[in-house]
Amino acid sequence: MTDAQGINLIVKATDFAARKHHAQRRKNMEQTPYINHPIGVAQILSSEGGITDPIVLAAAYLHDTVEDTDTAMEDIEKEFGTEVRNVVAEVTDDKTLTKAERKAMQVKKAPGKSKEAKLVKLADKLYNLRDLERATPVGWDDERKREYFLWSREVVAGCSGTNGALEAALDDIIKRNL
Amino acid sequence: MTDAQGINLIVKATDFAARKHHAQRRKNMEQTPYINHPIGVAQILSSEGGITDPIVLAAAYLHDTVEDTDTAMEDIEKEFGTEVRNVVAEVTDDKTLTKAERKAMQVKKAPGKSKEAKLVKLADKLYNLRDLERATPVGWDDERKREYFLWSREVVAGCSGTNGALEAALDDIIKRNL
Ligand SMILES: [Mn+2]
Ligand SMILES: [Mn+2]
Repeated sequence: MTDAQGINLIVKATDFAARKHHAQRRKNMEQTPYINHPIGVAQILSSEGGITDPIVLAAAYLHDTVEDTDTAMEDIEKEFGTEVRNVVAEVTDDKTLTKAERKAMQVKKAPGKSKEAKLVKLADKLYNLRDLERATPVGWDDERKREYFLWSREVVAGCSGTNGALEAALDDIIKRNL
Repeated sequence: MTDAQGINLIVKATDFAARKHHAQRRKNMEQTPYINHPIGVAQILSSEGGITDPIVLAAAYLHDTVEDTDTAMEDIEKEFGTEVRNVVAEVTDDKTLTKAERKAMQVKKAPGKSKEAKLVKLADKLYNLRDLERATPVGWDDERKREYFLWSREVVAGCSGTNGALEAALDDIIKRNL
């Protein structure tokens, strides 16, 4: 991939995700657009993780499109190619499972994932834990918040050895909140 | 600027703009997040205009932050450097003027702007005209829509000779609607 192609891929992935998530909002009081989350995940990867691989960044922008919008995995493959598709597939929960089963699967499967998928997972968890530390989501209590931190710690442990800066930031925030 | 720096700049500009515009919505029935507009402007530049210059793309993501949010031009300079700042400044209306004066200034000043600023202007106009063609904004009538097309034609004429593909697409949509 040339540099021009890398930039093209990132810009296109951002636009695709923004259109797919346009009707969704984050679970906060301000009803922040959902797209701010994948955009922030890519920013964590770039600014804190030192990641410049367009495949990883494109996958970060797209990481919730199949799970949370009407996007099919085949759409990702067609628009962004096999490499991006594979990373998105690795970080997409199986929606035929119950929520509890999906959470258990994330813990179980984390260690076997590719480095690219682990990077997206780590940045995704870091973004969500920072959100959670800043404000309790609408409808959540302290116990649910604590459980989320405990579960995240397990998923993060399964991704260890991937990126020092992201793992250090995750260790910090998890320790501060447990 | 290295390729890594270019990617870093684009990812950071997208995140900065998404956070600044988080409370804003487009003037359509669906209340689309405002950030979808600058993201779409960058996508037009990349996919239709063939633009890969990170300065132009970062400026596209940021182009409405100073005009429409609490962002100061100095914030753009500090976070993104002088080159990006200069392009954003060139495409930012002077809010001390009335709306009619600002529109007249856009027509008057277009020919003297840099190539980078003209590219952002062309893509911005193309995005907005496509939005307008798709659906009349809340509170607009046909006459106001027609005036917007007429005014856009003048601004676009002042940016001519900048990018063949974008100008051809603008010619098409303007002709179709006047
Ligand atoms: Mn996510
Ligand atoms: Mn604009």
